[in-house]
Amino acid sequence: MAHKTQVGIIGAGPAGLLLSHLLHLQGIDSIILEQQAREAIEGTIKAGVLEYPTVQLLKQLGVGDRMMREGFEHHGIELAFGGKRHRIDLHELTGGKSIMVYPQHEVITDLVAAVLGNGTTIEFGVADVGLHDVDSERPSIRYTRNGEAHEIQCDFIAGCDGFHGPSRQAIPAAVRREHLKTYPCGWFGILCEAPPSSEELIYAQSDRGFVLVSTRTPTVQRMYFQCDPADSVDNWSDDRIWTEFHARTAGSDGWKLKEGRIFQKGIIAMRSFVCETMQHGRLFLAGDSAHIVPPTGAKGLNLAAGDVVLLSGAIADFYRGASREALAGYGASALKRIWRGEHFSWFMTTMLHDFDGEDTITRRFRRAQLDYVVSSRAAAASLAENYVGLPFEGPA
Amino acid sequence: MAHKTQVGIIGAGPAGLLLSHLLHLQGIDSIILEQQAREAIEGTIKAGVLEYPTVQLLKQLGVGDRMMREGFEHHGIELAFGGKRHRIDLHELTGGKSIMVYPQHEVITDLVAAVLGNGTTIEFGVADVGLHDVDSERPSIRYTRNGEAHEIQCDFIAGCDGFHGPSRQAIPAAVRREHLKTYPCGWFGILCEAPPSSEELIYAQSDRGFVLVSTRTPTVQRMYFQCDPADSVDNWSDDRIWTEFHARTAGSDGWKLKEGRIFQKGIIAMRSFVCETMQHGRLFLAGDSAHIVPPTGAKGLNLAAGDVVLLSGAIADFYRGASREALAGYGASALKRIWRGEHFSWFMTTMLHDFDGEDTITRRFRRAQLDYVVSSRAAAASLAENYVGLPFEGPA
Repeated sequence: MAHKTQVGIIGAGPAGLLLSHLLHLQGIDSIILEQQAREAIEGTIKAGVLEYPTVQLLKQLGVGDRMMREGFEHHGIELAFGGKRHRIDLHELTGGKSIMVYPQHEVITDLVAAVLGNGTTIEFGVADVGLHDVDSERPSIRYTRNGEAHEIQCDFIAGCDGFHGPSRQAIPAAVRREHLKTYPCGWFGILCEAPPSSEELIYAQSDRGFVLVSTRTPTVQRMYFQCDPADSVDNWSDDRIWTEFHARTAGSDGWKLKEGRIFQKGIIAMRSFVCETMQHGRLFLAGDSAHIVPPTGAKGLNLAAGDVVLLSGAIADFYRGASREALAGYGASALKRIWRGEHFSWFMTTMLHDFDGEDTITRRFRRAQLDYVVSSRAAAASLAENYVGLPFEGPA
Repeated sequence: MAHKTQVGIIGAGPAGLLLSHLLHLQGIDSIILEQQAREAIEGTIKAGVLEYPTVQLLKQLGVGDRMMREGFEHHGIELAFGGKRHRIDLHELTGGKSIMVYPQHEVITDLVAAVLGNGTTIEFGVADVGLHDVDSERPSIRYTRNGEAHEIQCDFIAGCDGFHGPSRQAIPAAVRREHLKTYPCGWFGILCEAPPSSEELIYAQSDRGFVLVSTRTPTVQRMYFQCDPADSVDNWSDDRIWTEFHARTAGSDGWKLKEGRIFQKGIIAMRSFVCETMQHGRLFLAGDSAHIVPPTGAKGLNLAAGDVVLLSGAIADFYRGASREALAGYGASALKRIWRGEHFSWFMTTMLHDFDGEDTITRRFRRAQLDYVVSSRAAAASLAENYVGLPFEGPA
């Protein structure tokens, strides 16, 4: 069966959904294809820290009501090291900005409702997605659904299908400029039934490795500790997990992490990845399909938002007949903010994690960096402006 | 022949001379031992950037007159990369501070005159320097001069004899905590007869490697380019040197380095080194004997100044009978500023040098760091406050 639309969007993650909504507000039609079921993308619990520009954007687009009611606005974060906790006052250091702790699957739930409310089709549960004729003026996407073959004919394809999706692979390897760094550590994440241990997120560095204490609700908390990426959750009993958390967060101030029943465990890999070739013919990549950050800076969703703000504006320019320049320059414009976020995520990761085999002076440099960031206003302000998020880029 | 003094100082570099002068101003006697001749230490042309706190100190101690007349006060530096030059306004970003370009051998010349004027003995041309009984209350230094054996009996020994001197080795290896990083590059330095190419220092990053353009006088300039540390000056004709300088500093703004007769060439190694065990019994290390920085941050002499301010104060406390605490805590207090300077020097070095074999994403992170530092006031202010120098530490 053949469908027609202006923009065929592959992937109903934050990038694809937000792009569809942004295009709709400018009178441009799209269809979204998603491998998973609606229940799966809305129900898979994921962490989420929304930057200040992302929060403003969601509010402006009319999809921020539940976020404002149910999300938790944070005015600071804490850095814990050397047995002490140090607050970075994001609000004061950035002239009044803040972040919002609101999980990614809740953002997705809100965006799915908005997109469907726009009358836009989201095809859930598709398979065998293939991109065709992307370097022609009539690209298409073929896929199957419930065993039936479909085709979307469109003017543009937006590849919002994440790191493992087919979109990036549709750019010939010979012209694709990619950069990858794999960190020799992972994050062991848990969800537990416990009261919050802290009002704000705690980034804790210790000789035993990194810990992130984050909050979700008054009764459910998400926490992570740095682990061997090749480790297995089966090696970690609840007792062993809590012992490790306590050992890494022990301080002189008597503060103690609150325990509770652990109901989810998982290990995530840490990598930095950028595909600088973000466009090829009529195919445009946005979000995780083009770039991955380690989670330490909480930048993933926020970089995707920056991408689709630029891409939707460039496509709207094209249809208005205004100019093809923004479209031609999409990748170059997007990469400015992407590389800023990538560098910040690398900075936070290397400042907070110890790595096996590194020399002792590197560990001392790490401690010197931490001591500096909590003692210099300029250094704290630099961390803060990156953490709350620098403004979205405009077209070049 | 036996001599007696309160503090036996090994090394007439900036650390030893400044320490002697600081002690004299507090009524404490010292004798300085130096391997080289006076003409050699005063006549070996060395680079020099004095931090704001160092300049203030030399003025306060009455040894800043010639520096203020003949030195060049700089209010900014330039970062050059991607074909453009960007000014970091040190003066504006630090609330009115500046740096002083005044060569190290001129500082030494001024300090030698002051120390001799104090009536203090500097024994030039000594050999076979050995430290004895440093963990007793009556340590001594034995040496020969013109073939004659001498001994200095003293209360304290200050090891200001640089990286290769005997003082650090007098601390038993079993208790000595040392950290070392060797960078896989060196600096090829030249002195040339040419007018200044720039009013201010230029730190230039390029795909061919780093260049530092610094100025000395209206007719003599000092410049460096990153090289293989195992390279030889014999491989570099003047023509080849200038071709390399031009290739690395070529920009879109038409600016061009000014050439002139090269009258000195040399290659220096790049390393970060800290001996955290800065004291042992009655022996105290200061300056390069305890720590080395790569030259990119221009911190060497300035870290030495911070050390001897603390050490002289601690020794004065001891003689006043006030307290031995400052002396006991000397190393811990000094290491705060040392690690800040070490970290900053590492930061500047890794931001500005490319290294063979590094992955492409590391080069992109470097460019992202440079783009950020010239576009964010917080990031520029952080660089500026480190470059002009953070305040000297007080005793813990």
